[in-house]
Amino acid sequence: MEEIPFHGKLKYQELFVFQSSTHGKVAILNGFLQLTERDEFAYQEMLTHLPLCSIPNTKKVLLIEGGDGGILREISRHSSVDQIDICEIDEMVVNVYKKYFPDIAVGYKDPRVNLHIGDGVAFMKSIPKGTYDAIIVDAFQSMGPQAEELSDVCFLESVVRALRPGGVMSSPAESLWFKNFVIADTIAHCSKIFKGSVNYAWTTVPAYTSGLIGFMLCSSEGPPVDFKHPINPLNPESYGVAKGPPKFYNSEIHTAAFCLPSF
Amino acid sequence: MEEIPFHGKLKYQELFVFQSSTHGKVAILNGFLQLTERDEFAYQEMLTHLPLCSIPNTKKVLLIEGGDGGILREISRHSSVDQIDICEIDEMVVNVYKKYFPDIAVGYKDPRVNLHIGDGVAFMKSIPKGTYDAIIVDAFQSMGPQAEELSDVCFLESVVRALRPGGVMSSPAESLWFKNFVIADTIAHCSKIFKGSVNYAWTTVPAYTSGLIGFMLCSSEGPPVDFKHPINPLNPESYGVAKGPPKFYNSEIHTAAFCLPSF
Repeated sequence: MEEIPFHGKLKYQELFVFQSSTHGKVAILNGFLQLTERDEFAYQEMLTHLPLCSIPNTKKVLLIEGGDGGILREISRHSSVDQIDICEIDEMVVNVYKKYFPDIAVGYKDPRVNLHIGDGVAFMKSIPKGTYDAIIVDAFQSMGPQAEELSDVCFLESVVRALRPGGVMSSPAESLWFKNFVIADTIAHCSKIFKGSVNYAWTTVPAYTSGLIGFMLCSSEGPPVDFKHPINPLNPESYGVAKGPPKFYNSEIHTAAFCLPSF
Repeated sequence: MEEIPFHGKLKYQELFVFQSSTHGKVAILNGFLQLTERDEFAYQEMLTHLPLCSIPNTKKVLLIEGGDGGILREISRHSSVDQIDICEIDEMVVNVYKKYFPDIAVGYKDPRVNLHIGDGVAFMKSIPKGTYDAIIVDAFQSMGPQAEELSDVCFLESVVRALRPGGVMSSPAESLWFKNFVIADTIAHCSKIFKGSVNYAWTTVPAYTSGLIGFMLCSSEGPPVDFKHPINPLNPESYGVAKGPPKFYNSEIHTAAFCLPSF
């Protein structure tokens, strides 16, 4: 650890930013590692492009949390999109990232972005039915059996309501190495709520526990979505507000992310 | 850490075995983590089946190092094989694993196994040309540019010599997240020596640095080998001396292992 550029209590959370000798700047939120400059792109790109490359002609996208702006940066690569809404609970998170992680917060420079500061659960319930083509939930680190409380079911039901028929959601999920995480149970749980396609994917992110993170990809009842075989390849020349092409995501990695070990 | 069942200097190496609270028993050799009972199978299965499932009708297999026996256990699943040679430098490694890790050292129970105690480099040079269908080198944690010394080139040349035309080698290689590791350079380096197919693959192993490990898959000049599309699927009902089916490897994971991020 080399220096501490920021350490402070925000309105709802405690954020700690420091410069590391090997991973660039690192952000810790409420004691959990959020991202490092070295590998943040793997998570942000996969959470964004796995859903957005799986459906054609996406117009409206909603991001819940993700206040750092990295997912906005990735959505920005999709030129068909005409509206990007984000609901982040804490304005100071946004400001800290804008100051200390400009290459991540660059996402806010996209003119299609509308920032709402507020509670994501309440925001979700206020959305007219069928508004969005895609909703990215950058929260709920665990979607294993332990997250099956009523509140989460209610939240996921509000996500389904806010999606157009055949619309898609992505969210982070447990590592497949996590002892109590049973992928089949989580898929069954989400299938009941979403009534469309439900898949688990994963990618390598060295900074996270066990070196990888999982994702849930779900679609609502409607036109079928084949998450494993993307029909809307990313145009690598369309950067949006990003400074270069994707560093991690490509169509091969997209399909490979859905291949699971035998156990 | 709960207890220390073994800590001792072997003839050439220092081995440290302890019981951990989360990962079962753990083995540390010369200060480097070798394996944990929790996730050893991911490495052993991939290092073994990536080469052996890529070629038909494998008869003779050589393992250099791998004294723990886990790779022998995996080779044992291949019923076409009639000879499994292993050259391990330190007999005490074998004995310690047999005592403390019986589910891994079970590989030695295969009657096709011939154990040679000695130096792998010398052993390799003594092998008549074209002897083996497959050689698995469970050493050389790094095959990056820093490993391009003459000695390694000589060693790899002796591997090529010992392989039949179109025979295959697998060995561990750096993590794709390792800063100074350039996959393209390593592939170019190995292509010059092997003159057949050369590919980099990777898999998740939480216990290793950055949560994953890479593999080099190389074939010698001869019948072409398409490592990405295995032609010899593992028969999941043929356990050999193993106690159950593979926990990690399957044909989908085989192909996915060769998909690389854009960076």
